[in-house]
Amino acid sequence: MFKAAINAELLKDALAALAVIVDEVRFKIKPEGISVKAVDPANVAMGIFELGSSAFDEYSADESEIGIDLNKITDLLGIADKSDTVRMELEEENHKLLIDVGGLSYTLSLLDPSTIRAEPRVPQLELPAKVVLNGADLRRAVRAAEKISDHMLMGVSGDTFFMEAKGDTDQVRLEMGRDQLIDLKAGEACSLFSLDYLTDIVKPTNKVNEVTLSLGRDFPVLIDFEIANGAGRISYLLAPRIESD
Amino acid sequence: MFKAAINAELLKDALAALAVIVDEVRFKIKPEGISVKAVDPANVAMGIFELGSSAFDEYSADESEIGIDLNKITDLLGIADKSDTVRMELEEENHKLLIDVGGLSYTLSLLDPSTIRAEPRVPQLELPAKVVLNGADLRRAVRAAEKISDHMLMGVSGDTFFMEAKGDTDQVRLEMGRDQLIDLKAGEACSLFSLDYLTDIVKPTNKVNEVTLSLGRDFPVLIDFEIANGAGRISYLLAPRIESD
Amino acid sequence: MFKAAINAELLKDALAALAVIVDEVRFKIKPEGISVKAVDPANVAMGIFELGSSAFDEYSADESEIGIDLNKITDLLGIADKSDTVRMELEEENHKLLIDVGGLSYTLSLLDPSTIRAEPRVPQLELPAKVVLNGADLRRAVRAAEKISDHMLMGVSGDTFFMEAKGDTDQVRLEMGRDQLIDLKAGEACSLFSLDYLTDIVKPTNKVNEVTLSLGRDFPVLIDFEIANGAGRISYLLAPRIESD
Repeated sequence: MFKAAINAELLKDALAALAVIVDEVRFKIKPEGISVKAVDPANVAMGIFELGSSAFDEYSADESEIGIDLNKITDLLGIADKSDTVRMELEEENHKLLIDVGGLSYTLSLLDPSTIRAEPRVPQLELPAKVVLNGADLRRAVRAAEKISDHMLMGVSGDTFFMEAKGDTDQVRLEMGRDQLIDLKAGEACSLFSLDYLTDIVKPTNKVNEVTLSLGRDFPVLIDFEIANGAGRISYLLAPRIESD
Repeated sequence: MFKAAINAELLKDALAALAVIVDEVRFKIKPEGISVKAVDPANVAMGIFELGSSAFDEYSADESEIGIDLNKITDLLGIADKSDTVRMELEEENHKLLIDVGGLSYTLSLLDPSTIRAEPRVPQLELPAKVVLNGADLRRAVRAAEKISDHMLMGVSGDTFFMEAKGDTDQVRLEMGRDQLIDLKAGEACSLFSLDYLTDIVKPTNKVNEVTLSLGRDFPVLIDFEIANGAGRISYLLAPRIESD
Repeated sequence: MFKAAINAELLKDALAALAVIVDEVRFKIKPEGISVKAVDPANVAMGIFELGSSAFDEYSADESEIGIDLNKITDLLGIADKSDTVRMELEEENHKLLIDVGGLSYTLSLLDPSTIRAEPRVPQLELPAKVVLNGADLRRAVRAAEKISDHMLMGVSGDTFFMEAKGDTDQVRLEMGRDQLIDLKAGEACSLFSLDYLTDIVKPTNKVNEVTLSLGRDFPVLIDFEIANGAGRISYLLAPRIESD
């Protein structure tokens, strides 16, 4: 059993953050909320998604697992107004999700969860440095780096967080000191990341006040932030690139 | 003789509603206003268009018939400001329409009306059910149906108006009861329509408060609404599709 | 030595006006400001660009010449906010321009000026007629002409400035009398210009209050206007087209 109601824009934003990683998703539904763990097809980025029951206007659920094509549901939500309420109800016996929004009733066929890649194991990493910054600052640096290169260094040196991209002839660097950051835990950290992935991952951070980056030396970065006004959380784990030249 | 002045946005909206059906149009000009009857090249949709002289700031005309390429005139109006006045004058002897708008003077060659398909005969139909609803509601349902299928049922069942689209796996349905509609005349009605056509036809209804649908059982739908603040009217007659599977 | 600070939007607008003519530019830097003279690859249009030191918040410079790829710098400024300050500093020894904007530090490799086409000689022309008009009026007429043809007449006849485009069947004409213009110096003038070029040239005039056109009979047109709130100036010289048919 699963029956819930939630604000349309909040749901749209949450699903957009997930769509960065995968199109077809196994949602784990529990009485305390919904969660997803997914890896992108190339095994470079992982998304860990949690949306607690308090994010919903109404929520009642047993344990179950459903498979959803995010593109379909995003398409449908595109027609909703921001302030619309989305009502969802699971029809377990015939594998349908009933969605009601803006007077329209959708009947969505669910995917068989067993056809979707299984939940990955989340690695336990020791990431010595931690940086908390504004999402818009992060996104701006990534957009600037894209103009120059297809990969980008991120690291912490002393009390300074830096991002840097080098092209054939040009270069861009952002440095933020302790006073420009929301928080900084110093630690030796410097890793190179693919901008293909970072560009997508930082898109949903644009409206986010506090994004936390956890970094190491040639280690993955953990990028995480709250969604749904604190009632949910999304974490991305992005593997480093080996220095190319 | 034909000489008239009209608000640019009003003319633009009226012509856009007509352009849904055809590109080249025979305008019938009379002392009491302008009218068009046209069928789309595939004979699926008909448009009946009337713009009374009261829609114009100035209007004086004898009877005449002129052929116009709507794309050209729409292009020119695209440069006008919403509040601009469009002045038109027919130069009968050399088949030109003089258009003055925003300080620019256009001389447009007219098409020979005899090269444009003749006015169709408008069939007399007995359409038992009638529904009056807000144009934005209609457009939303059509946009939702497009996500799912390429055709859509519209009908009346008891005191409920419904629109429904079924895809291979998914389905969307809108039901509106008497209290959600502006008006309803109950009657047995259920027909299937091509969304290719409906999508275009409902585009101009987005700003329209009251759209009237007249429906029957496997019969055409008549969609009509006022334009030019009530000084004109456009009606579309759309043939039903035979149930495909 | 060159070190300067300037408002990001002002710089963006100035460079956009220049990019109409060429992509790779030789900037002449002097203590009193920056200047460029450039011809488009087809030798049809020339741009003469001056940005005085008073356009800058800070400015100190010796004489030097640098080569810049406008696309690169425009790309980078695209990320800046309108109110950001752009700080630039020349690293002469290694041919780099350091650009600081919105917390991001760019290191841009300069082009070797000797690889960029040399400054053209600006011809001395006697253009008898002069028209001063609002940039938005000019742009509107050019946009209207584009709908009809690929070239456009501009001229002065008596006390009237006119622009006219003739297509195969249609025609558009703008006439502005002395009272609709900001200023007019009468003189016999009528020349035909390519709309390919005019379209690009008038794009930056859209926000400009006063654009001066100097015209002759089958002579180039000189289009010029202030940039940077009067602290700079751009002039375009566009060759006439020979009447085609």
